Amino acid sequence: MKPSLAKGTRDFTATEVSKRQYIIEILKNNFQLYGFQPLETPSFENLSTLTGKYGEEGDRLIFKILNSGNYLDKINSDELQEKNPKTITPKISDKALRYDLTVPFARFVAMNQNNIVFPFKRYQIQPVWRADRPQKGRYREFYQCDADIVGSTSLWQEVELVQLYIQSFQDLKIPITLHINNRKILTGLAEYAEITEQLIDFTVALDKLDKIGKEGVIKELLEKNISQKAIDRLDFLFHQTNNSLGNLKLLKEKFENNIIGLQGIEEIEFVIHNILSLGVSEEILKFDITLARGLDYYTGAIFEVKAQTVQMGSIGGGGRYDNLTEVFGVKNIPGIGISFGLDRIYLVMEELQLFPENSEKSIEYLFANYGNQEAQKSLQIITKLRQKGIVAELYPEEGKMKKFFAYSEKKGVKNLVFIGEDELKNESITIKNQESGEQKTMPIVDFLQ
Amino acid sequence: MKPSLAKGTRDFTATEVSKRQYIIEILKNNFQLYGFQPLETPSFENLSTLTGKYGEEGDRLIFKILNSGNYLDKINSDELQEKNPKTITPKISDKALRYDLTVPFARFVAMNQNNIVFPFKRYQIQPVWRADRPQKGRYREFYQCDADIVGSTSLWQEVELVQLYIQSFQDLKIPITLHINNRKILTGLAEYAEITEQLIDFTVALDKLDKIGKEGVIKELLEKNISQKAIDRLDFLFHQTNNSLGNLKLLKEKFENNIIGLQGIEEIEFVIHNILSLGVSEEILKFDITLARGLDYYTGAIFEVKAQTVQMGSIGGGGRYDNLTEVFGVKNIPGIGISFGLDRIYLVMEELQLFPENSEKSIEYLFANYGNQEAQKSLQIITKLRQKGIVAELYPEEGKMKKFFAYSEKKGVKNLVFIGEDELKNESITIKNQESGEQKTMPIVDFLQ
Repeated sequence: MKPSLAKGTRDFTATEVSKRQYIIEILKNNFQLYGFQPLETPSFENLSTLTGKYGEEGDRLIFKILNSGNYLDKINSDELQEKNPKTITPKISDKALRYDLTVPFARFVAMNQNNIVFPFKRYQIQPVWRADRPQKGRYREFYQCDADIVGSTSLWQEVELVQLYIQSFQDLKIPITLHINNRKILTGLAEYAEITEQLIDFTVALDKLDKIGKEGVIKELLEKNISQKAIDRLDFLFHQTNNSLGNLKLLKEKFENNIIGLQGIEEIEFVIHNILSLGVSEEILKFDITLARGLDYYTGAIFEVKAQTVQMGSIGGGGRYDNLTEVFGVKNIPGIGISFGLDRIYLVMEELQLFPENSEKSIEYLFANYGNQEAQKSLQIITKLRQKGIVAELYPEEGKMKKFFAYSEKKGVKNLVFIGEDELKNESITIKNQESGEQKTMPIVDFLQ
Repeated sequence: MKPSLAKGTRDFTATEVSKRQYIIEILKNNFQLYGFQPLETPSFENLSTLTGKYGEEGDRLIFKILNSGNYLDKINSDELQEKNPKTITPKISDKALRYDLTVPFARFVAMNQNNIVFPFKRYQIQPVWRADRPQKGRYREFYQCDADIVGSTSLWQEVELVQLYIQSFQDLKIPITLHINNRKILTGLAEYAEITEQLIDFTVALDKLDKIGKEGVIKELLEKNISQKAIDRLDFLFHQTNNSLGNLKLLKEKFENNIIGLQGIEEIEFVIHNILSLGVSEEILKFDITLARGLDYYTGAIFEVKAQTVQMGSIGGGGRYDNLTEVFGVKNIPGIGISFGLDRIYLVMEELQLFPENSEKSIEYLFANYGNQEAQKSLQIITKLRQKGIVAELYPEEGKMKKFFAYSEKKGVKNLVFIGEDELKNESITIKNQESGEQKTMPIVDFLQ
């Protein structure tokens, strides 16, 4: 039997683990500096906790876990014959794999609302699973990395999270643009064009401006039965400049008496104004009126992060939401969160060659093995090196010098060490630097100094 | 709907995550110093990769994942009516959650045998899942933490892994006893007593000596139809002293001409002798002839780690095995591995109060919020503190001083910071140390120096 990986999954070898760990450590460090605390939830939840939270498509893509024992016993034969997954699945599966980190977080907050100190700032970095058709860059198991603050409606949270984004990507050395919008502005625009009922159709089309251009968006708007009159009224959207503050000013004029729209502008101005006062350069922030992600749940600020010089789509996103826990019967817990796209960040960093060379620990000293006495002496020295935090290793096979050299070559060992008969007698050690080729013999005491 | 955790699962909150992370970091650091490299495998594998590897009971306890789509379509109606999980399960599930880290590791080695440099030293710290009945201290999701070396039969690997165990627990500050035995000694004993066919019955009973005493073991041996004559011959086993080397010497006399038994002794002596030469105290190592874990697969050394002063059973175990990958059609890859019992190590460390107090990062400076201008100035200072690696936070709600104090109390904040009207005017800052109660006002520039 020739083994294989399950479809859509990956092994991560040493280099990949180290590089991923490099990213994660930078993010964790920032999360902690900003006062976020870690949370880890179980890989599977009760099926009822997850279903109905991600729409019909989402429900289909949740990985369900088969019950143990005689799981078919409770189903009557007629029902079984129908072979309808919709009725059978809930009877043979009561658990499912985590689909994202948000719903388990909401479940946690709802369960622990009386013990949690609000505002509650948590970060969570864990894998999630989706039964998507695997394709290039899309896996059935992948990591999400979220930071959320719940229990506060203060706009300072928006400022903090934008700053956290900027600081984290700065530490990763990825030049980014942080796109920012506000659901209230989109609502205001729909009111302004008198298409309030068609807010979603309108924003979905507008969101594609980058990809399909003005003509494409107008075509789609017309297909969705949005009137030419409304489109004419919105024509200014297609003439946004690169000047965020200028665009906001123009919009403010249009929004005279449009309460919700003006509120959105005020919120964005507050965030931008305060971020700039922290010394952040204006080019990083971009008020992007076309940004319309997550309108199912975002109620205020909407964020999206893009790498400046790499074509990769969004490498982060988030926004403000209300009522995180309402589905679990707990009302009035507002929140705001951001997410880092680990897999894409990894790809961007590969492309820009941003990983440090030594993110993987290589062997500093590899000791040859000339026999038991020599090996024993070697291991005593190795022990002392390790106590100093130096990676050292004894080649296990006695006398196999050819294999020893091949191993050292393939592992990229920095120094070869030889303790043979002479060295044993003289309490000395012979070291060959693999880079310079230089070889020297010295007393062991000097080497360990 | 009141949400709950799935049976047998846990949330890990900040304190728990930090403490677990503390353990994991110490283990990872040692793994790396000893030349082990990280590997991460997917959470689920093809069902066929896992079934048949853990015995019948194990197969039952594997969590199977339901196929997507119309998973019942392919099953004919007669078969469906039988409702037999054994025939139905493989048709509606082709994936399953990882049950341990060994089989996925074997799958990885078999798949990548041509790219791997042997000896291959990997460590892996990931959750595994078992459909066990949950009970105190036993969960359906728990972490395993394994280090293995494959591709070498050298006894120096035994020495290295024993040393790795000892160093790791020393770093964790847990006093341990490392029990060591060898499958060949048990085989030798069975030969010696002429009960070779009953090796497993014999060792299973002997393994219980600690719990049920000499009388209990003899009773069980008789029940298993082991002759009184054999039991008489083995009587010396019940008179082992605390002197490992002495016990080995006695056994060696018994084993005259018993080739396999003598080989086992020689291997253990090699390991003990070399470990002692590294300065390890003799009390830590215990030759334990009753130790008989994992005889299904261990072929040489067998290890078990126990905490010295806490009743907790085994907190680590491992041994040498042959043919890790044989089930996947790849022969002759011998190996040796050790495992750390994270959950139990955690409990031992709690009991011995070994976790450092500051394993969780608490807030160093919490800034009160007196209004937008004051908050903006505060955030500028907070930004500079964070750049120095200091955890600082702005309380988001303006003017809510009662809530501010309550929040700081519950979060264990170390210093409260006030930037009000006066401070804003004077470019000063007021800081109250929560421990000493001392409060002082100083220029911001001095504070940031």
